[in-house]
Amino acid sequence: MMGLLPPDMIVEANTVRFDSLALDSGANLSPVDVAYETYGTLNAAKSNAILILHAFSGDAHAAGISQETGKPGWWDNMIGPGKAFDTDRYFVICSNVLGGCRGTTGPSSVNPATGCPYAMSFPVITIGDMVRLQKMLVDWFGIQRLLAVAGGSMGGMQALEWAVSYPGRVAAALPIATTTRHSAQQIAFNEVGRQAIMADPDWNGGDYYGKQPPARGLAVARMVGHITYMSDQSMREKFGRRLRGKESFSFGFDVDFEVESYLRYRGSQFVSRFDANSYLYISKAMDYFDLTSGNGTLAAALEQSHSRFLVISFTSDWLYPSYQSQELVRALRSRNRDVAYVELESNYGHDAFLVDVAEQTEMVRGFLAATFERLS
Amino acid sequence: MMGLLPPDMIVEANTVRFDSLALDSGANLSPVDVAYETYGTLNAAKSNAILILHAFSGDAHAAGISQETGKPGWWDNMIGPGKAFDTDRYFVICSNVLGGCRGTTGPSSVNPATGCPYAMSFPVITIGDMVRLQKMLVDWFGIQRLLAVAGGSMGGMQALEWAVSYPGRVAAALPIATTTRHSAQQIAFNEVGRQAIMADPDWNGGDYYGKQPPARGLAVARMVGHITYMSDQSMREKFGRRLRGKESFSFGFDVDFEVESYLRYRGSQFVSRFDANSYLYISKAMDYFDLTSGNGTLAAALEQSHSRFLVISFTSDWLYPSYQSQELVRALRSRNRDVAYVELESNYGHDAFLVDVAEQTEMVRGFLAATFERLS
Repeated sequence: MMGLLPPDMIVEANTVRFDSLALDSGANLSPVDVAYETYGTLNAAKSNAILILHAFSGDAHAAGISQETGKPGWWDNMIGPGKAFDTDRYFVICSNVLGGCRGTTGPSSVNPATGCPYAMSFPVITIGDMVRLQKMLVDWFGIQRLLAVAGGSMGGMQALEWAVSYPGRVAAALPIATTTRHSAQQIAFNEVGRQAIMADPDWNGGDYYGKQPPARGLAVARMVGHITYMSDQSMREKFGRRLRGKESFSFGFDVDFEVESYLRYRGSQFVSRFDANSYLYISKAMDYFDLTSGNGTLAAALEQSHSRFLVISFTSDWLYPSYQSQELVRALRSRNRDVAYVELESNYGHDAFLVDVAEQTEMVRGFLAATFERLS
Repeated sequence: MMGLLPPDMIVEANTVRFDSLALDSGANLSPVDVAYETYGTLNAAKSNAILILHAFSGDAHAAGISQETGKPGWWDNMIGPGKAFDTDRYFVICSNVLGGCRGTTGPSSVNPATGCPYAMSFPVITIGDMVRLQKMLVDWFGIQRLLAVAGGSMGGMQALEWAVSYPGRVAAALPIATTTRHSAQQIAFNEVGRQAIMADPDWNGGDYYGKQPPARGLAVARMVGHITYMSDQSMREKFGRRLRGKESFSFGFDVDFEVESYLRYRGSQFVSRFDANSYLYISKAMDYFDLTSGNGTLAAALEQSHSRFLVISFTSDWLYPSYQSQELVRALRSRNRDVAYVELESNYGHDAFLVDVAEQTEMVRGFLAATFERLS
């Protein structure tokens, strides 16, 4: 099957190691591996590079078919030849975040000082730390200025952090379906996920590597997540009250409804590909994220940026509701920053940025082309 | 302290035992205890009785100060002398639902056939079963027709079931912040709660009585619940991003944010007053509830009812959104039924029916008075 694909569709994961990384907490991490993939070709001027930033449970495999797993990337419908992030024109990089479990150093990595996995001795990290590591990767590529940084959800937070922390290094930022800081409700959903994991005796204070992982707790956490990623309407359309493989109620506690079956499946599937401690660390980084750093106004924080912005939100996204994007847009406008904003009509809820890409593609393509022309 | 209260504020719980109850599943439960409280005085004509129906985790203690615990009832701001359900005029009854854990027979009750708690051998029950048992209680009081049945959330489902199943026995129904059937999203949130409980090894297939109950799983289930009971806005106003007892992030996994502290507290508190198996059974009954019984239209189902209706929903309630109440109202209107509907402005989310009672009080008081006058 893979032999039939054009060779540029098959992608390979790479890893680069850096000596050390200073963290916002004051801790230092040494060494640090970064897993990344690239798509397209970096031009001679190194002016066509776009950094794609993944969401909570994503990884470096954003596009193409993985040589390792045979699976398409998580944003394959947006990245590739002729797509929104057009790899015929641009060089696209995506790396696994710090704290992750897909090649980049995280709590499941071996601490060279002990020869054992870090587990909960891994330092608490921030979105700022993730971005600092990404900048080391971009420096390593010898890229002076990124054409764009783009991502949805937690990826959008990283895009915002890039624009504010490294203003000279980012021509354009595309924060999608995201926020400049987590609300109480967003923190609350993350906290429920963390508590579900830590309530599982198999979590064992984080020391479960080589043993039974906290599969039940992680599955429950993921189930909660999935509800928040969909909308009331998309769940109604996808599942409604349809029963699973039966014509009447079971009057028991096995699966009755399709939606129950879906959630249980998604929960158990997640366990096979994600590390529970990474769930704790990455969700904490999202909760800590605040573009104002807790002092000053959002407008003052954004004043440091000189990027162009394309901000996108989705009508049915109740996890990262449009009002949060609009707050960002107002703050940018108040400092006369170059910002375009679209609220796209979609029923898919927060997942819209991953699945409902027709209009998104138009918006991104035009915005990138205009930015690229302006720089050339 | 309790000595200073007017004696009619102090209420006592009562229990009545019935020989047996036939269930929708085909099973039979024998015997069945019902815990109830009453407030006010039944008039000679027995025409002033109102049945109050509690929500998911409520109980029979709806009003006054419990002689046993010293605590006010869950709807004490709505029930009492001069209040919405005015006990100077009406005789108010509230009973714990079938499957509950506060005096009425449920999974934690002893099965007389075995001498042990039912646990998961308790039959799966429905909202219809709950209402059938309530009708036995009403019969026992010798009340031929209830002036009204009223409740919020799952209490509203029971009110609807009453109006449709016993049309001659209910002059008025007040379904508040409720639905005629759970949506996929509502089922999904319940399923997450159930999975959290059953994922806890202490759940032990339901056999935990006399041992360590599944406290961690039940606490996680309750945390999810609390998020859905509040609104994004009420959480923002109540907690925002305020830190708990500190000035900066802990860079650890203890409580950082107020909202985390609140959820953990509510979760652990719930464990001391609620049975995990009751959580499973009652949430299942809610998911099974469908006024159309899965066939025919809602309008056809409601045609059986001859009650007057006051339907109330709240603008910020995203767990039982207004469109569900409006569906009910449209169906009633399409059969020319006597229905009043108000969508009340509130920031409190689903909790509004419990806490934001000023306008609700006006609506309920007027509606009950008009119904009572019409009957007299």
